[in-house]
Amino acid sequence: MLSGKMMEPQDDIEEDDSPSASAPPSSSPSPSSSPPPRALPRQRTSLQKSSVCSRSYFMVVMVFFHVYIINVIALLLYVHYNNGSNAISANRDFTSSDSSSHKVTGASDAQATADSGFPRNMFLPRIEGIRVGHVQKVSLVSGKVHEMKTLSLKPLLFEIPDFLSEEECAVVVRLAQLKGLMESQVMVPEGQEELDQQLNLSPEEIFNFLDLNQDGQLQPHEILTHSRVRDGIWLTSENLKEIYDGLKADLDGNGLLSLEEFGRLRSDAFQRFLLQRGVERSQLVRNSRHTWLYQGQGAHQVLQDLRKRVTLLTRLPSSLVELSEPLQVVRYEQGGHYHAHHDSGPVYPETACTHTRLAANTTSPFQTSCRYITVLFYLNNVQEGGETTFPVADNRTYEEASLIQNDVDLLDTRKHCDKGNLRVKPVKGTAVFWYNYLSDGRGWVGEQDEYSLHGGCVVTQGTKWVANNWINVDPDYQRQARYQLLVSQQESQEQEEPNSDQHIEAHQDL
Amino acid sequence: MLSGKMMEPQDDIEEDDSPSASAPPSSSPSPSSSPPPRALPRQRTSLQKSSVCSRSYFMVVMVFFHVYIINVIALLLYVHYNNGSNAISANRDFTSSDSSSHKVTGASDAQATADSGFPRNMFLPRIEGIRVGHVQKVSLVSGKVHEMKTLSLKPLLFEIPDFLSEEECAVVVRLAQLKGLMESQVMVPEGQEELDQQLNLSPEEIFNFLDLNQDGQLQPHEILTHSRVRDGIWLTSENLKEIYDGLKADLDGNGLLSLEEFGRLRSDAFQRFLLQRGVERSQLVRNSRHTWLYQGQGAHQVLQDLRKRVTLLTRLPSSLVELSEPLQVVRYEQGGHYHAHHDSGPVYPETACTHTRLAANTTSPFQTSCRYITVLFYLNNVQEGGETTFPVADNRTYEEASLIQNDVDLLDTRKHCDKGNLRVKPVKGTAVFWYNYLSDGRGWVGEQDEYSLHGGCVVTQGTKWVANNWINVDPDYQRQARYQLLVSQQESQEQEEPNSDQHIEAHQDL
Repeated sequence: MLSGKMMEPQDDIEEDDSPSASAPPSSSPSPSSSPPPRALPRQRTSLQKSSVCSRSYFMVVMVFFHVYIINVIALLLYVHYNNGSNAISANRDFTSSDSSSHKVTGASDAQATADSGFPRNMFLPRIEGIRVGHVQKVSLVSGKVHEMKTLSLKPLLFEIPDFLSEEECAVVVRLAQLKGLMESQVMVPEGQEELDQQLNLSPEEIFNFLDLNQDGQLQPHEILTHSRVRDGIWLTSENLKEIYDGLKADLDGNGLLSLEEFGRLRSDAFQRFLLQRGVERSQLVRNSRHTWLYQGQGAHQVLQDLRKRVTLLTRLPSSLVELSEPLQVVRYEQGGHYHAHHDSGPVYPETACTHTRLAANTTSPFQTSCRYITVLFYLNNVQEGGETTFPVADNRTYEEASLIQNDVDLLDTRKHCDKGNLRVKPVKGTAVFWYNYLSDGRGWVGEQDEYSLHGGCVVTQGTKWVANNWINVDPDYQRQARYQLLVSQQESQEQEEPNSDQHIEAHQDL
Repeated sequence: MLSGKMMEPQDDIEEDDSPSASAPPSSSPSPSSSPPPRALPRQRTSLQKSSVCSRSYFMVVMVFFHVYIINVIALLLYVHYNNGSNAISANRDFTSSDSSSHKVTGASDAQATADSGFPRNMFLPRIEGIRVGHVQKVSLVSGKVHEMKTLSLKPLLFEIPDFLSEEECAVVVRLAQLKGLMESQVMVPEGQEELDQQLNLSPEEIFNFLDLNQDGQLQPHEILTHSRVRDGIWLTSENLKEIYDGLKADLDGNGLLSLEEFGRLRSDAFQRFLLQRGVERSQLVRNSRHTWLYQGQGAHQVLQDLRKRVTLLTRLPSSLVELSEPLQVVRYEQGGHYHAHHDSGPVYPETACTHTRLAANTTSPFQTSCRYITVLFYLNNVQEGGETTFPVADNRTYEEASLIQNDVDLLDTRKHCDKGNLRVKPVKGTAVFWYNYLSDGRGWVGEQDEYSLHGGCVVTQGTKWVANNWINVDPDYQRQARYQLLVSQQESQEQEEPNSDQHIEAHQDL
């Protein structure tokens, strides 16, 4: 149709109302437009004219053809990048911000694009949980359909049986054993006072920070919450009484510490007292051994497959998954446990993420690992115990203070695993995954989801093998974008340089 | 490039690596490409040649220009229709179905497109709640930004202060008064036995249906749940004892009805007993007066504006909102109440929706109003009481049996409104809205959200005016599509016919 009309001017040229106006873009012009240039000079049979004509004509064709192709490419690129961004911009029309951390993220979004040239509007789809018990079919391995069951909405938590085959589980365990596992927690952690000193806090300031309910006294749970995180030793209420007696800390014997009583104690007094007295491994926050397995190019195929499957499962951009932490493989011996904790911390405007710190240009003392998603794999069947507990899953409210009651400490996975809201039994090959952060309502990471609190119940019989994949995402879009740009630049540099061994070696250390 | 090589192989034509290949679509070809064609023949100064040349040249330009424009339009259309469908298809790749009702919907989706020609992939966006207390800014009225606060996630419930202005509230109340209000519930409902008879159930079958925990005995709460829905009279545990005594129903006096005891009662025995004894309005499920206001073309501007604002608020296709029920305006006098209920029922495969029944071609005895969303407007400030209660909002579990305990009946909004999880205070101009159904995970309506249970607490002082907008959506995509097609066909027919008054009159009846 195209070429025919060119040669015969008397023909009616298609008007805008022609039905082909809605033709699909597949009616490509390139093949159909190539005959005319040749046919034209031949018909006219005036060679000299046509040589001139064909020249100008050729130029026109060329220009239009190129412009056309360029525009089609540009439009296709637009379509491609628009799918993500539309979903975001739809939300942005009704932009939300109710916390300062949100504002930081929001303001930097548009900036990131302009600054870094990073593909704009990277988008984090969040899987719909619908309701507890909902089952959706997911396609992760060709020729196989997995079932993904919603276990809770707060946190958004899913279980996928048979995510790994028996053989894959065996390979991961074997690779971890070959690499060698180390104690997950050393007995005497060092550098504990650094943050206090760095922040230069007075005892009054620390007291006020610990006094969650601001009643001018430190309740046992206020002390416990802090000291467990700080010292890595799992104090119980009984331990605390013992320490108070030993240190003569609670002079009036009311079980509470006043500012005066608190001020008389060294900041590491509890830890020193306990270490003097002797601490068992079972008294640590975490009693396990672990190692890290690199999953990138050159790694065992099972590890690479696993990462691809995680990308499909979480539906996150593969670049995000690839730049996340390596696989952590953990072994719990009989008696092993991991008391309830968050995999990643809350986000304040000044919080830096470990993974993007290099790109962030900040020296913030607040740092967290920014683990947006945790994917946990069970690598064996545990004879008894070893469940993963989510003590406050789908609770109506989250109150830190109410977690540690006098009689029941919901955080204690050695004593009170049965009192929590949800427990997942370890079954070989099953994966569970959950979001440690909420959405910000605009397609990116929002606030920490406090309900993602979880722990490993004590293994009462046998050994427990699990692996963790954490997907690291910076809640600050700009920082994540800058980081990814930096890594991609480095990688292309390394490819140019002949001795790129350093890079691989660095990974093998993991 | 293609044609270039044919004519002048020596010319260096732009290669694929040219920077313009990634140029944005804004570099439109029509202005920038027009100068070269003209300049070219002039430079040559051969007039006759150029006249031939310009003709063929003109044709080439025209054809390419048209093809280009057509293709741009086609691509833009592709982009346009792709946004909605992509969002759905992204979900569909991981299609879910865990209940039979889902399967019905799922199977009919593609069908609906093919059958009815209805715009395919109609999509129901669901607003993200993020977390309780989250505030998002929404743009509903030009020059004004509203704040929308998440009140609960189960049900997904939002509050928007100042949704209506004082004047708008006054107009709606006035219009309702002019129209006249009727009792929301008549004292003696008729046709109660119809369903039983239609289904032809034996006393044994009814007994088994009522015996929720299947223990062979009817507990008081099992009787109460049923009789309240059936008879519209709000029995309390005390009433029940009274009735048992009066009818000598509970022969062994254990407070439970065995099949034998149950079988001796007429199916309307309780209702007859109560009516004989006399029933107060305060003993009804619902003690209020209401009317319906049409919101379409010709209606008061405030009513039309309200509907547009509801469309913006819910982000649903406007055709869905326009085909929903009219505005219901309700007045509660002092002492008025509405015990806790669901605005719409559960969805079974054989359930029909009231609004699409005409298009559905079914005579199912199960029918519900399929109110996907409830938007509730407070039209005045109530002196005391009259809160909207959501007794189980964000509860970890929903157990019908545990709602009615011996001492606390969470469904009773006259006695136990203070025991529920969430209460919304009526404030003039504020709107609240919630989803009565979950998502099906594929952009359409899923199962009923049981947590959407709500009621109107008793008005202890003053009068309470509210209005309800329900957005009706059939959980069966195909039925909804067929219904909308049918209505649009009827409307276009009526427009052709001169006497379209009937249509308007029919609406004014509402």
